[in-house]
Amino acid sequence: MANFLTRLLPREQSFFAMFTEVTGNIQAGARALAEIFADYRDLQRKVDRVKEYEHRGDQLTHEIFTKLNQTFITPFDREDIHQLTSKLDDVLDLIDAVATRLVIYKVDKPRPGAAELADILVRSTAEIHAAVSRLEKHDGILDHCITINSLENEGDRAVRAAIADLFEHEKDPVELIKWKEILEVLETATDKCEDVANVLESVVLKSA
Amino acid sequence: MANFLTRLLPREQSFFAMFTEVTGNIQAGARALAEIFADYRDLQRKVDRVKEYEHRGDQLTHEIFTKLNQTFITPFDREDIHQLTSKLDDVLDLIDAVATRLVIYKVDKPRPGAAELADILVRSTAEIHAAVSRLEKHDGILDHCITINSLENEGDRAVRAAIADLFEHEKDPVELIKWKEILEVLETATDKCEDVANVLESVVLKSA
Amino acid sequence: MANFLTRLLPREQSFFAMFTEVTGNIQAGARALAEIFADYRDLQRKVDRVKEYEHRGDQLTHEIFTKLNQTFITPFDREDIHQLTSKLDDVLDLIDAVATRLVIYKVDKPRPGAAELADILVRSTAEIHAAVSRLEKHDGILDHCITINSLENEGDRAVRAAIADLFEHEKDPVELIKWKEILEVLETATDKCEDVANVLESVVLKSA
Repeated sequence: MANFLTRLLPREQSFFAMFTEVTGNIQAGARALAEIFADYRDLQRKVDRVKEYEHRGDQLTHEIFTKLNQTFITPFDREDIHQLTSKLDDVLDLIDAVATRLVIYKVDKPRPGAAELADILVRSTAEIHAAVSRLEKHDGILDHCITINSLENEGDRAVRAAIADLFEHEKDPVELIKWKEILEVLETATDKCEDVANVLESVVLKSA
Repeated sequence: MANFLTRLLPREQSFFAMFTEVTGNIQAGARALAEIFADYRDLQRKVDRVKEYEHRGDQLTHEIFTKLNQTFITPFDREDIHQLTSKLDDVLDLIDAVATRLVIYKVDKPRPGAAELADILVRSTAEIHAAVSRLEKHDGILDHCITINSLENEGDRAVRAAIADLFEHEKDPVELIKWKEILEVLETATDKCEDVANVLESVVLKSA
Repeated sequence: MANFLTRLLPREQSFFAMFTEVTGNIQAGARALAEIFADYRDLQRKVDRVKEYEHRGDQLTHEIFTKLNQTFITPFDREDIHQLTSKLDDVLDLIDAVATRLVIYKVDKPRPGAAELADILVRSTAEIHAAVSRLEKHDGILDHCITINSLENEGDRAVRAAIADLFEHEKDPVELIKWKEILEVLETATDKCEDVANVLESVVLKSA
């Protein structure tokens, strides 16, 4: 009977636990992307793995929105939960966008800079995961935000160097178009990590 | 005398009626764009028609902001009215941006994928119009938002296929640059429809 | 003793004074960019100057966020201060992005349209500075916002003409890629000025 009731009652998973699941999934997606550039063999299978994380992310996003819809008192600002969910979703969308472009553009080998940018993304999503894991205790989040901001600057420098190198050495305009875009989407993903940091900062500021 | 007073008094058009006019206009703009790709003759005249909808949209946007400025009690959150107005404006701006590019780039015939994306935009703006028409009664909006989200996914798949086809078959890099952009702006317009859906979702969530 | 205490106490610089310093710095950055296109000699030194303004902007942004973090009662909505700061930062980031691309792409001479767009940016940032200077008195801000919006429209027309000219006359696809991007980033900077205007509008509306 207790079992029966338990199944009827909504599972009381907290928003904090849900967000931690989301950010763990994003981090796994970033790692899967970095593995592509670290070893470019077996591309389609690796791209499919990134896409699985992206699908999982979509499910989690949907679950959070549904829960938000059914919850009267939220642990922090309703709109901030909405914002955070949607910005986190953007990060994984862009990770997936990079992987997808490798297939669409039939890219047969990586170029300098891509691995470095993917690595920055791994570190940045790790910081997001760490910050979000601390959201309930509300402690030390701003330090992670600062690191995310400095990783975004690092990404900025890395993409500039990679694109200067691209224009210097790639003479085929079609290759140039493809790679300029791939490198820029990689960098935009680190920008979106910064957007996540900005929402987290704003949550912390409001509760100060 | 009554007549005279009526003319002096601000016309009491509700925000709901104004938003419905805005979204009806956007839908008409999306249809006008779709007609271009369905039959590419008489381009300049058809592009001018899209631009007329865009101008009308700018006027309506301005009217809403003015009314917002003069209204003490708004039917829903003041900032959400601001957000909704500005996101709706973005959709029509991008519809116009696609049409304008056909002229600027002197595009002489459409390519595969464009008509399909324009058609998705027609459906997506129809959903927006239906959702906004229900804003006052506040009923069934989330269903339309779900449809808009799935149309955005459809747009995503369509643009990926069209761009893969473009890189496969178009060997002139200048044509490739033009069409990559046109297809991407079309898809960004469906993204902006999703942004509108997100604001609508947030309005519904707040009032829940 | 008074001196000693004064040094210990936090300097009571108001948010208004800080914002005015930020917008003055942005305006100086826009002017430094316009000087590049007005006289293309001595590029690296001029680009370095733009970057100095951008670094100064980053410092000021950080100072505002720190102050926000330490301030209990803010002169206007906490989140709006956050938004305004971050949108202002975007404008200067894009001004710097234009300058940086000239170096990365090894651009050896300017093209038609760039000087005009940079000039629009000078005027638009001057309007922002004027609006923000009036933020405390809260008077006449909406007029500046209207001008910023119309400058954005002007920027839109200017970039369309410049890009049409580019596709008409530039036959080297690599040059075309470089300049399409430079012109578009210039125009995006005027878009971001409009985003600033939107936040200012929203601040005014809330306090109405």
